[in-house]
Amino acid sequence: MGRWKPDARGRLMQSALELFTERGFEQTTALEVAQRAGVTERTFFRYFSDKREVLFEGSGELLSGVVGAITGAPVNMAPIDIVTAAMQEAAERMEPNRPYSIQRAAVVAANASLHERELLKLDALSAAAAHALHGRGVPELAATMAAESGVSVFKVGFDTWVGAGPEVTFAQCIHACLDELKGLTAAAQ
Amino acid sequence: MGRWKPDARGRLMQSALELFTERGFEQTTALEVAQRAGVTERTFFRYFSDKREVLFEGSGELLSGVVGAITGAPVNMAPIDIVTAAMQEAAERMEPNRPYSIQRAAVVAANASLHERELLKLDALSAAAAHALHGRGVPELAATMAAESGVSVFKVGFDTWVGAGPEVTFAQCIHACLDELKGLTAAAQ
Repeated sequence: MGRWKPDARGRLMQSALELFTERGFEQTTALEVAQRAGVTERTFFRYFSDKREVLFEGSGELLSGVVGAITGAPVNMAPIDIVTAAMQEAAERMEPNRPYSIQRAAVVAANASLHERELLKLDALSAAAAHALHGRGVPELAATMAAESGVSVFKVGFDTWVGAGPEVTFAQCIHACLDELKGLTAAAQ
Repeated sequence: MGRWKPDARGRLMQSALELFTERGFEQTTALEVAQRAGVTERTFFRYFSDKREVLFEGSGELLSGVVGAITGAPVNMAPIDIVTAAMQEAAERMEPNRPYSIQRAAVVAANASLHERELLKLDALSAAAAHALHGRGVPELAATMAAESGVSVFKVGFDTWVGAGPEVTFAQCIHACLDELKGLTAAAQ
């Protein structure tokens, strides 16, 4: 039984990650995940619609957190700073779960269908961020491009973070990606 | 029988798009696509590994075109200009197929599994572009962020193009997205 979180949902997430790591995603059934977590298969499906979703438990919270931060950002802040600050806040909430994130990233990278689902979640995050920016009066194309860039710095920053040592924070990695992006566009013709 | 291209592959692509538009992607079988194209189901699977892939026929060519353009770009060109120029070249090749692209975009938008596959192809394009830039000596993080931005301007530019009138070219839409991105990053703190 996992010790990461005391509730059934948390135990299912931890058990799924352990089994996907040990045996592979395709080779693990929802029943096996439930058994390791000490609950029934029916309980698994009360929490998660399918075997993939157990790895994307946090994506709804991530999305609502980012949208909330964008909506509540100070007026007159530049769109790309608004969206990057929102991503950094999300990164700070994820910082304590670094070991989980590292293990989860390895499982996702090893399976094409999980990678597809991850990209779909990031695309939904981009669309929601664009909608929230547009709701603040940012014109549509600017809102879309700022959101896309925010998701890029989050995605590339995440990869940097899970590949770096524990002394480097996720928020720092996002900051480094944004600086890189600024330098790249400033050097363009 | 489709009249878009005279060969079996082209007829299968056109027939698939027609049927997916008329009946929906889920409601159409590979056999039905083959029959409308005037070939056997076996011929369908000689060209395409599954029903989704018939809509992604051009993605290999897109990827190799972009990689080729990046590799062959002039020395001392800024990374983001290299990747954007490569995307614009690809856009110019796609320009004559605007009616096909518009219809295809509607089919992809209507089905989550097609949307996932599209995002996976764009992610592979980003990874290949980053690899090609890195091969020219661009440091890894810069190469990755430039490639991500190049794919963003391609993706958002594509959506703008298919939503605009025929007087607006895909390459122009990409240019407008890049200008927007430059303005956004220049205004950042």
